Amino acid sequence: MNGASRPTSGEPSGARAAVVPPASRLEQDERWARAALGFLVEPGHTGLVPMVKDLGAVETLAAVRAGRAGRAAETYVRLPDLDVRRIATEVQRVGARVVVPGDPEWPVRVEALRRPPLCLYVSGSADLADDTGRSVSVVGSRMASDYGRAAAADLGEGLASRGWASVSGAATGIDAAVHRGTLAAGGCTVAVLACGIDRVYPRTHGRLLEAVRQHGAVVTEMPPGSAPLPRRFLARNRLIAALSRATVVVEASLRSGSLSTANEAATLARPVAAYPGPVTSATSAGCHRLLRHHVAELVTNVDEVLELAASIGEELAPEGVGEIRPTDGLDPVEHQVWSVTPLRRWVDPADLASAAGVDPALVPRAVAVLEALGLLDRDGDRVRKASPPAG
Amino acid sequence: MNGASRPTSGEPSGARAAVVPPASRLEQDERWARAALGFLVEPGHTGLVPMVKDLGAVETLAAVRAGRAGRAAETYVRLPDLDVRRIATEVQRVGARVVVPGDPEWPVRVEALRRPPLCLYVSGSADLADDTGRSVSVVGSRMASDYGRAAAADLGEGLASRGWASVSGAATGIDAAVHRGTLAAGGCTVAVLACGIDRVYPRTHGRLLEAVRQHGAVVTEMPPGSAPLPRRFLARNRLIAALSRATVVVEASLRSGSLSTANEAATLARPVAAYPGPVTSATSAGCHRLLRHHVAELVTNVDEVLELAASIGEELAPEGVGEIRPTDGLDPVEHQVWSVTPLRRWVDPADLASAAGVDPALVPRAVAVLEALGLLDRDGDRVRKASPPAG
Repeated sequence: MNGASRPTSGEPSGARAAVVPPASRLEQDERWARAALGFLVEPGHTGLVPMVKDLGAVETLAAVRAGRAGRAAETYVRLPDLDVRRIATEVQRVGARVVVPGDPEWPVRVEALRRPPLCLYVSGSADLADDTGRSVSVVGSRMASDYGRAAAADLGEGLASRGWASVSGAATGIDAAVHRGTLAAGGCTVAVLACGIDRVYPRTHGRLLEAVRQHGAVVTEMPPGSAPLPRRFLARNRLIAALSRATVVVEASLRSGSLSTANEAATLARPVAAYPGPVTSATSAGCHRLLRHHVAELVTNVDEVLELAASIGEELAPEGVGEIRPTDGLDPVEHQVWSVTPLRRWVDPADLASAAGVDPALVPRAVAVLEALGLLDRDGDRVRKASPPAG
Repeated sequence: MNGASRPTSGEPSGARAAVVPPASRLEQDERWARAALGFLVEPGHTGLVPMVKDLGAVETLAAVRAGRAGRAAETYVRLPDLDVRRIATEVQRVGARVVVPGDPEWPVRVEALRRPPLCLYVSGSADLADDTGRSVSVVGSRMASDYGRAAAADLGEGLASRGWASVSGAATGIDAAVHRGTLAAGGCTVAVLACGIDRVYPRTHGRLLEAVRQHGAVVTEMPPGSAPLPRRFLARNRLIAALSRATVVVEASLRSGSLSTANEAATLARPVAAYPGPVTSATSAGCHRLLRHHVAELVTNVDEVLELAASIGEELAPEGVGEIRPTDGLDPVEHQVWSVTPLRRWVDPADLASAAGVDPALVPRAVAVLEALGLLDRDGDRVRKASPPAG
């Protein structure tokens, strides 16, 4: 049995509900044994995650059932409630899939975590491995300002237009803005949840999550039915950082959870960036702290984000140039002669040398250059500054 | 004769106008010979400034008069117009003083420049050496936003309240805001001009410059009568950087002259800082570039500025802490137990272990801690989350 098989296109998810095998058979399957273990313990469990890596999930689960998985009582506390068949049924019911290491869709990038997820519950049209391969996490405050939401939406749109996916946490504020910006530009976006794949959190985001599923994917490490407890947000944040090539914090207060995503990305040696904002804005104070401590690089647009996220030389951000002035490129003598030439009064160029403090012998050449550039007007032997062209 | 003597307090400047000696005698005086050379060439002249360092100003001036000061024709171009007596008369007329190396008021800090000023024209109540000893340059765009002006005024005020002087360029926008903020808080501020000490530039800043003179100083390297030519602003900017312990750019477009002040400070290995702003603001783009290129450190208030400007350990900026939450300091088990405890329903603590995924044996202690902290209410054997205290 392969719980990871995705619904064929055109076929409503869960329409051809396969009969779910009994628990005893599911527990003999690495995929479902991983799901079972993920039900027993919280993400990143110090005992079971390494044990699975060594022994595999089927054997680890058998060890738990036999009381041979270490002495930590919390390993066994949920054993009476374990019903892997119910997990499989729920996954099927909501049209999701369980992705484990070895599956083509498994995002190997998450293996960089010290204790990677045992399995991932995925729902949506995206291929998690493919689409996060060129992705950037964009995270930030739930209590975002208009400025922050606009910047996040712009960034989501910019990523989409450059063929990159966005990854975020489906929360209000920055998260929702980046998902929406990406979707509006026809891009792929991935929402990583801190609760079960069957739950809508926050409750007002049912429609947003449905749109993410249609054009991207909703992902979680938590089994169906799991509530979004505070510590699970930290686990979720580490997953957001691990799934993407780089992490950008758009707005964050000093206590924003998005700072943990940034720190996790830094721990993984992935690029971390932050948007600046007004120094008077509490929702930028967390970004400014990341920048002050050099945890994050300052970025102001998608080009600069992709320069960090992309492989070296792949996406180079153009430098802003500011206003172009007609006097750009003048040499010091030309510039000094030009600046002492009056705008309204005609003067003999020979009279400019003293005011300019330049060698009189250099003045004729400077005047010729300035005239050729249209910066000086000439009337016989005399010159004056050319009027700036009308607007 | 000592042109650097400052007017005695209570005596209107210029009230007892001394008779100005003839030029021949003035040119024998190092002070006035320096002033004369400063009239002949633009600031930072590659020929005369090193020559003065080697031979002294009197000898250098004699060499110029004899045509023995190198072949560069621009060294001699203003010689016919040189009238050092007129300079001295003008200085006296406007109640200014000429400060040269060796004077107690000479700010030795400027000697860090590759080609320091030959002399400084100073007007005002401050002692230039003393008051710039603990000073920060605050510079930025003339076309500043309300945000930038408010931040600059705040910073000027903050510097004053901490006993530091501000240095800026008396321009509109950021410069004016920092001068005014410092003055409003009763502090000392120094305005460095790109024109002669006798000129008011910009014209609308006559009253501001008068206030700066009363509570600080107006300074320039240019002799009286000099116009504020574009290249003199660059020379002036290097002087602003050299006079102060650190330079802060509050707002700057990509073409703002204040970026040259920042680069000059960096060249002098003085601390450089920049305020962030919205990524949508063109007047912050220059600051963001300085930060992206790690020319400047990001700062958001006077504490952070002084941490950079002060000697190591002298002024440490307090870290922002964000909101304090009652659950801060809980250990992971306590936090997880607290987060699964319902707010409205009474539960048996023993029932919390599975939901929390923690060792049941650890629950009683966690509950006791949470109760002691007022985070749980108890009703006989049962508990529930304590309601958050009313705002």
